Amino acid sequence: MTPDAPIGVFDSGVGGLTVLKALAAQLPQERFVYLGDTARLPYGTKSPETVQRYALQAARTLARHDVKCLVIACNTASAVGLGAVSEAVRDVPVIGVIEPGAQAACAASRSGHIAVIATEGTVRGGAYQEAIVRRRGDARVRAVPAPLFVALAEEGLCRGPIAESLAHHYLDPLFAASAGASRPDTLVLGCTHFPMLAEAIGLVAGPGVSIVDSAQTTARCVRQTLEARDLAAGAGAGGLRLLATDAPERFARVGARFLERPIDPREVELVDLL
Amino acid sequence: MTPDAPIGVFDSGVGGLTVLKALAAQLPQERFVYLGDTARLPYGTKSPETVQRYALQAARTLARHDVKCLVIACNTASAVGLGAVSEAVRDVPVIGVIEPGAQAACAASRSGHIAVIATEGTVRGGAYQEAIVRRRGDARVRAVPAPLFVALAEEGLCRGPIAESLAHHYLDPLFAASAGASRPDTLVLGCTHFPMLAEAIGLVAGPGVSIVDSAQTTARCVRQTLEARDLAAGAGAGGLRLLATDAPERFARVGARFLERPIDPREVELVDLL
Repeated sequence: MTPDAPIGVFDSGVGGLTVLKALAAQLPQERFVYLGDTARLPYGTKSPETVQRYALQAARTLARHDVKCLVIACNTASAVGLGAVSEAVRDVPVIGVIEPGAQAACAASRSGHIAVIATEGTVRGGAYQEAIVRRRGDARVRAVPAPLFVALAEEGLCRGPIAESLAHHYLDPLFAASAGASRPDTLVLGCTHFPMLAEAIGLVAGPGVSIVDSAQTTARCVRQTLEARDLAAGAGAGGLRLLATDAPERFARVGARFLERPIDPREVELVDLL
Repeated sequence: MTPDAPIGVFDSGVGGLTVLKALAAQLPQERFVYLGDTARLPYGTKSPETVQRYALQAARTLARHDVKCLVIACNTASAVGLGAVSEAVRDVPVIGVIEPGAQAACAASRSGHIAVIATEGTVRGGAYQEAIVRRRGDARVRAVPAPLFVALAEEGLCRGPIAESLAHHYLDPLFAASAGASRPDTLVLGCTHFPMLAEAIGLVAGPGVSIVDSAQTTARCVRQTLEARDLAAGAGAGGLRLLATDAPERFARVGARFLERPIDPREVELVDLL
């Protein structure tokens, strides 16, 4: 592995582009290969065994691009697949988004009362809860699934009355119902789609609640990992290669909102993971 | 093929259980094998090529159960896969839900102004529009995607303010904006998830709009097909075998709402289509 090798990033679809954006901003000289498993998304409603199998196939595909580091940008895949993927691509450091997200939450919270919203799969697996308590023994964590936020973000309904009604639906049991000392002071957006809805979520959670996601801390973790192994690219103009397992048009159209720049469908290469 | 063979029904997940319910009610003496491709759902956001490939794999799996008839209960798979599936399982009659849905719409509409809500894939393919106009040359059809309804129905948020806001979001451009003679008098629920939201949809579409779905007409079409081929089961207690490609627990939990009866997760057999 050499410093001029690319960094591999994978996700179930376009959500991980919010993580890629943070990576590219912190590591502008690096080249990235992003893989979205759009033929089988979403991962959040699928079983741990299936998500792990999909994650392994994606990781092996990226390994064939000679990546120097692998980022699992999907929370659900990080929650259930990090161990298996690390073992499968032994030489390549693998970084998920759960540990960096937990780190951000612990740093942001004063009271230790932390709420997590995520997909069904991420919540059920308990990885966030465990990662937060491991870092901070006094933490009290409540995690709830907010699956409709995924579809809402994909459709671009990120602001306005529908987004706010849904935010009330998911967050009122966490925030409106608990008062004083037991009210969480930090909310982890435990799905890469959710930063798209940060405004509506922040409005409903209310002032005094820190909204954190994994993107920035994950990017920092990747930088540190590369530096520690002398694998950071020196000079370089950066670069991005986009791979998807299905529907390049849709990837480009929906992904552009997540990446905050236009994507030409011809930029998106179709790949088969099987 | 013999009359005592089962009828195969497949869908991307649990939505097709609304069709199965109608089939079982009209054909109580028949045995059914239902296959939900829960490892790769939803189909509605995926490309025609990918959905066709998935549909073929599902059909071949059901063909191995010696079915006497194959029902594609998924609108998106019917829209893009009916031809390919029919060719692949040549001896077995294959019935999709688009033609029966179009038939129901044409029968219900007085004015010929017909609206269709469906997934992105079904709308883009234009199969409903084409099937309606083929039956009724004077029809004017408007089809719009309503992708969030799928997630809403899966989560059981079928009534109340969130369902109604979303119904306004999708339906107001079809109904509130058009007046008098150009207002559709019929609305086709072109996705098997949508009958779960019929109440909220009907409330927003308003009185005087017929809400139709494919379930009843599909069941009638299956009955006629079996009778025409002397394949209808004579006496028989019926029966249902449930297959899924992932997450039996979730299939049972979410599917029970669609089937309107409890499903024991142990009833759901895991199968691999590859």
